[in-house]
Amino acid sequence: MSIAILFDQKNPEPWVKLLEEKLPNTSVEVYPSIKEPEQVTFAVCWKPEKDALSQFPNLKVVQSIGAGVDHIFKSQQLSDSVQVCRIIDSQLTQDLYEYVLTGLMSYLRDFSKYFNDQLTRTWKPKRYQTIGQTTVTVLGLGSIGAFIAKELAEIGFNVRGWSKNPKKIAGVQTYKQDQLTVALQQSDVLVNVLPLTPDTEDILNSQTMSLLNPGGYMINVGRGAHLVENDLMELIESGQLSGALLDVFRTEPLPGQHPFWNHPKITITPHVASITTLTNAVDIVVENWNRHLHSKKLLHEVSVIQGY
Amino acid sequence: MSIAILFDQKNPEPWVKLLEEKLPNTSVEVYPSIKEPEQVTFAVCWKPEKDALSQFPNLKVVQSIGAGVDHIFKSQQLSDSVQVCRIIDSQLTQDLYEYVLTGLMSYLRDFSKYFNDQLTRTWKPKRYQTIGQTTVTVLGLGSIGAFIAKELAEIGFNVRGWSKNPKKIAGVQTYKQDQLTVALQQSDVLVNVLPLTPDTEDILNSQTMSLLNPGGYMINVGRGAHLVENDLMELIESGQLSGALLDVFRTEPLPGQHPFWNHPKITITPHVASITTLTNAVDIVVENWNRHLHSKKLLHEVSVIQGY
Repeated sequence: MSIAILFDQKNPEPWVKLLEEKLPNTSVEVYPSIKEPEQVTFAVCWKPEKDALSQFPNLKVVQSIGAGVDHIFKSQQLSDSVQVCRIIDSQLTQDLYEYVLTGLMSYLRDFSKYFNDQLTRTWKPKRYQTIGQTTVTVLGLGSIGAFIAKELAEIGFNVRGWSKNPKKIAGVQTYKQDQLTVALQQSDVLVNVLPLTPDTEDILNSQTMSLLNPGGYMINVGRGAHLVENDLMELIESGQLSGALLDVFRTEPLPGQHPFWNHPKITITPHVASITTLTNAVDIVVENWNRHLHSKKLLHEVSVIQGY
Repeated sequence: MSIAILFDQKNPEPWVKLLEEKLPNTSVEVYPSIKEPEQVTFAVCWKPEKDALSQFPNLKVVQSIGAGVDHIFKSQQLSDSVQVCRIIDSQLTQDLYEYVLTGLMSYLRDFSKYFNDQLTRTWKPKRYQTIGQTTVTVLGLGSIGAFIAKELAEIGFNVRGWSKNPKKIAGVQTYKQDQLTVALQQSDVLVNVLPLTPDTEDILNSQTMSLLNPGGYMINVGRGAHLVENDLMELIESGQLSGALLDVFRTEPLPGQHPFWNHPKITITPHVASITTLTNAVDIVVENWNRHLHSKKLLHEVSVIQGY
């Protein structure tokens, strides 16, 4: 039994070093230099190469090193006996909340307008919106979305939450799968933290986003493929939406010629809503490896059928 | 007994209309067209013209329509028998807190850097700072500063507060007049909400601001004259401070040629941290007029000796 690391655009060295330190008697190899593929039972992945996992006939566990697993499902054919796990860590959840709070406050206080005004030395006060006047709809109420919704309600936002499976959250009005329309109607801000699955791809489109109040705002910290980019541009052009804060994109880094870059009402951040902390993530991976060795229930396993 | 309105750069018409509605039997006149100056006992002021109040021999009350009264003390010689009042309103206090929160989050998440990166289509992730890692020192613990400090502590910042007169605030480490140095040392962000008096003018200078941790940040929602502008520029140039968010300036609107405008690490907003709501302010003025008529204790009176 051994561990294989399969990373795209991420340096595996710090991972190898820490895993070897914490698991001194375990073989840890980095794809594609795997000497005995049939020994690999546990794969640690970030955007693995297409079908790379098919070379491991005895694979039992696929461990994502982030909160999302869409990068695994979209690139691999996994047999029914493989379990897929993700990283859930309270700091990462708190970090996402802090990013969303930054985006919401920046929207309420028009910081994007004032940044642009500053470039032209323009002094032009505008009345602001307050937390208490603002309704926010959070799409996705897994451990991350539920936490964000609860915290936002605590500081005074009027918060709604929507999820496939019904949830109860203190201070939050929740809606179930067939109630997306009513969850978005007369809301001011849509915050997307959904997992990416075939059901949720393109869910941020003109039909859904136009349900928000005129002048509404969109914050996407889910995945780029949730958003129909042209629909967003059109809703902003027509004045239906006042703008958007985007941290994730269909192609990352966002290509240099993309029209989002120079749009004055779209704020772009380079996938920094939450950055996995190496040591926290390694601890979860080590714990799951040990559970795997002793055939115990794994942490943060996702449903292969649901895709999250 | 009558009311005089003395406004600079502010339209008095909505005020006249509301006051006449709420006080139908009272004479309300607008400076400089005052027919019987000796009748004026109550002056409603915003940046009154220099010594304009000296023409009212029977003046008893000067009511500021904002939270600050420095615009009155610096322009008028008031006799000992005049009482000066300001507006305190819970929405205005909440608004200032929301502005400070916006500035803090924008600092933690480097939104100013990302705005600038976007102009050059640059994708460059940077590790962020979290609320829990951040120490904030609030200068000024009157009703506004104390509220801001308490709220920031509640959402997880490590908060210190400094004021002339010692204060106790739940969750906040407070310091008194002679402890400014220790209040600022090893803090990350200075938030200034002090009143402007001869004691506090120029208090944001190289000596005080350089006590912050390297890379520290400054948020000024007090008055422009609290800040020594060149000292701020030098501390940012040297890398000692990472930047500043300024809502108030020595001259407002900020003159077009001012070096703050095109400084990539200084964010400028046009005095919008809190905007007095006409109806809330008028209600307080009406209440004080009625108290004045019946010789009762006035609301929100300030000390003419302390200047706040």
